[in-house]
Amino acid sequence: MSLIYLDNNATTKVAPEVLEVMLPYFKEEYANPSSIYEFAKNANHAVRDARGVIKDFLNAENEKEIIFTSCGSESANTAIQGVLNMNKNKRHIITSKVEHPCVLNLYQTLEKQGYKVDYIGVNSNGELDLAQLEEAINYDTALVSIMYANNETGVIFPIEKISEIIKSKNKETKFFVDAVQVSGKIPIDVQAAGIDLLGISGHKFHAPKGIGALYVNSKTLITPLIIGGHQERGKRAGTENVPYIVGMAKAAELAVDSLKYEASEVKRLRDKLETGILKKVFNARLNTGAANRVPNTSNIGFEYIEGELILLHLSDLGICASSGSACTSGSLEPSHVLRAMNVPFTAIHGSIRWSLSRYTTEKEIDYVLDVLPGIINKITSLSPYQEELENLKKLKGF
Amino acid sequence: MSLIYLDNNATTKVAPEVLEVMLPYFKEEYANPSSIYEFAKNANHAVRDARGVIKDFLNAENEKEIIFTSCGSESANTAIQGVLNMNKNKRHIITSKVEHPCVLNLYQTLEKQGYKVDYIGVNSNGELDLAQLEEAINYDTALVSIMYANNETGVIFPIEKISEIIKSKNKETKFFVDAVQVSGKIPIDVQAAGIDLLGISGHKFHAPKGIGALYVNSKTLITPLIIGGHQERGKRAGTENVPYIVGMAKAAELAVDSLKYEASEVKRLRDKLETGILKKVFNARLNTGAANRVPNTSNIGFEYIEGELILLHLSDLGICASSGSACTSGSLEPSHVLRAMNVPFTAIHGSIRWSLSRYTTEKEIDYVLDVLPGIINKITSLSPYQEELENLKKLKGF
Repeated sequence: MSLIYLDNNATTKVAPEVLEVMLPYFKEEYANPSSIYEFAKNANHAVRDARGVIKDFLNAENEKEIIFTSCGSESANTAIQGVLNMNKNKRHIITSKVEHPCVLNLYQTLEKQGYKVDYIGVNSNGELDLAQLEEAINYDTALVSIMYANNETGVIFPIEKISEIIKSKNKETKFFVDAVQVSGKIPIDVQAAGIDLLGISGHKFHAPKGIGALYVNSKTLITPLIIGGHQERGKRAGTENVPYIVGMAKAAELAVDSLKYEASEVKRLRDKLETGILKKVFNARLNTGAANRVPNTSNIGFEYIEGELILLHLSDLGICASSGSACTSGSLEPSHVLRAMNVPFTAIHGSIRWSLSRYTTEKEIDYVLDVLPGIINKITSLSPYQEELENLKKLKGF
Repeated sequence: MSLIYLDNNATTKVAPEVLEVMLPYFKEEYANPSSIYEFAKNANHAVRDARGVIKDFLNAENEKEIIFTSCGSESANTAIQGVLNMNKNKRHIITSKVEHPCVLNLYQTLEKQGYKVDYIGVNSNGELDLAQLEEAINYDTALVSIMYANNETGVIFPIEKISEIIKSKNKETKFFVDAVQVSGKIPIDVQAAGIDLLGISGHKFHAPKGIGALYVNSKTLITPLIIGGHQERGKRAGTENVPYIVGMAKAAELAVDSLKYEASEVKRLRDKLETGILKKVFNARLNTGAANRVPNTSNIGFEYIEGELILLHLSDLGICASSGSACTSGSLEPSHVLRAMNVPFTAIHGSIRWSLSRYTTEKEIDYVLDVLPGIINKITSLSPYQEELENLKKLKGF
């Protein structure tokens, strides 16, 4: 049985080209890039060149604005704790209700430390309430942290507009953007978007798990999270992970090369999957309506049935999808994102996230469209809500 | 020109067997180990099994006591900040003057935050002053952090004895051991040694750069440094770096298998290099005297000349050694470790650390012994201290 991997928002496969460029750094080029001898030059230059690639990937002004980290969570923790430590007199933070659990858990910890945190809501399509955001910003607001796109719904937030709102209300407020879910899917331009800090994670765009980056613009001061050696200009201690740094740079180059393909072909396949499911399955609903989304993500609710059951049936056929972020899997609570969107309780437990990549094929999508209706019908036939399901069927004209 | 790598305390080459076991996790087994589908089982079990291996490597009681991190610096930061956050009422910390810069820099930051930090000194051989340590511990001491062995000198500190001293003076004081420089060189037994927290770094024992582990015994509570997802039982957020976790476990197994070889053959080659240099070079002195050391490290001072110049000449012949930790390279200050030892100013600037590994060959050592005296003589002949050098020569009977 071959694998059909539609969970690319959880993690992606390492691109073969990425593995290829990493191999020399696992073999002959093993020097510590901080060492002064000739042998360390290649490793040192490899890290320097990779920093330039990531600078271009985000359209930062200067290589010095790029810090290599070990993951998206570290990037977010460094950005958020780093900005707050440099602005100890300010005690107010704004974020959204639909941020990644890593950011939300951190804010809950900060609340216990006496910070006031406002959580901005979203509408039923998952779009951010900009009026609420504008109103929340005040003289005491140290930081606004908003994700670029949501990991569960794929809905893109208007980052440039948000930056304008923030800066018009308080020029000193710093703006952190968790861009883990958009890197490699849509272009990122930190300068045009007016972003102060931005975090990415390599394993979401075909680099390995265990490498990330944080952009901090030259006007923004932060304290390091990992204190110690001089690496990353004193902003992140620890011997550089040379192979993964080189690998993430290659993954970024490949991602830039395939942005058009993402916007056209990946989107076409995503739309084919989505419209196919909505057409074939009467109790399916698109949870995001007409919201602007990244090209690879679809979040579909299957009414009156349980998502975990759908996933297990799919898994039996080698199809990987998910019911939320992998970081919260195992929890029986419905997704905090879908709850914030007020997805009806009839659909929230049966919502599935499908996330494609440039490796997804038409044949795979056709196969899912072939087998999914049978799976859903089988599970639906065992639902205790048969009367409601009959009504829904009629209502939808099936 | 072939490479002679004698800087294994800075970083090591990845063992071919380690790369071998990582490869499947860069290729087909790319699942997020937190995902619930069948495809994620192998990745999930690989992390679980690796945790068991590291548990055995350190002789921890339980797998739950092992946290995977991204490096030794992260392990140290997590341990130190994590313990202090759980003991906010205590404001006193004890460490040594010769800790790794990552630990010392963190303590300087903590001092600015109002902590009182005592820095325990060493004698001229680099051995810790246990009487000073004992005296420093009081009711307010939250944490003692002492390295297992020094990275520059290789001198091993009596960890079990230190633990006894700590617990006899204050049972509640936690004991963190930075074991980055001993893992793979001597056996570690956290239970027998009475250690509460212990950090290791994979790239010091032939795993890649970018992976580490932290042991936290079940009686010790810490806050996470990277807050977010549920990974590592809530003690370290971030998608697991499956390939490197698997690789570090393999490296630990290989290290255990070669402990005897380290203690006999690596030590024999280190001693051959050391006695050879001392015999052939009149202005060489062993900086550690008769202190107990890890088998692979030798720190030798060359009097009245500059270490950087020696390193550059060695580099020209493909020989890699260092004058301190890579993390402080580029700094013109003499090593804080050698200063704490009161190494005479005539030797401190010309001190070189030689650090071998199980890959070091007799032929390599012979070659260094062949070329080094010529290099030293050449540099020495240009020293402005010719009169002192003549006296030294006579004194040593050359």
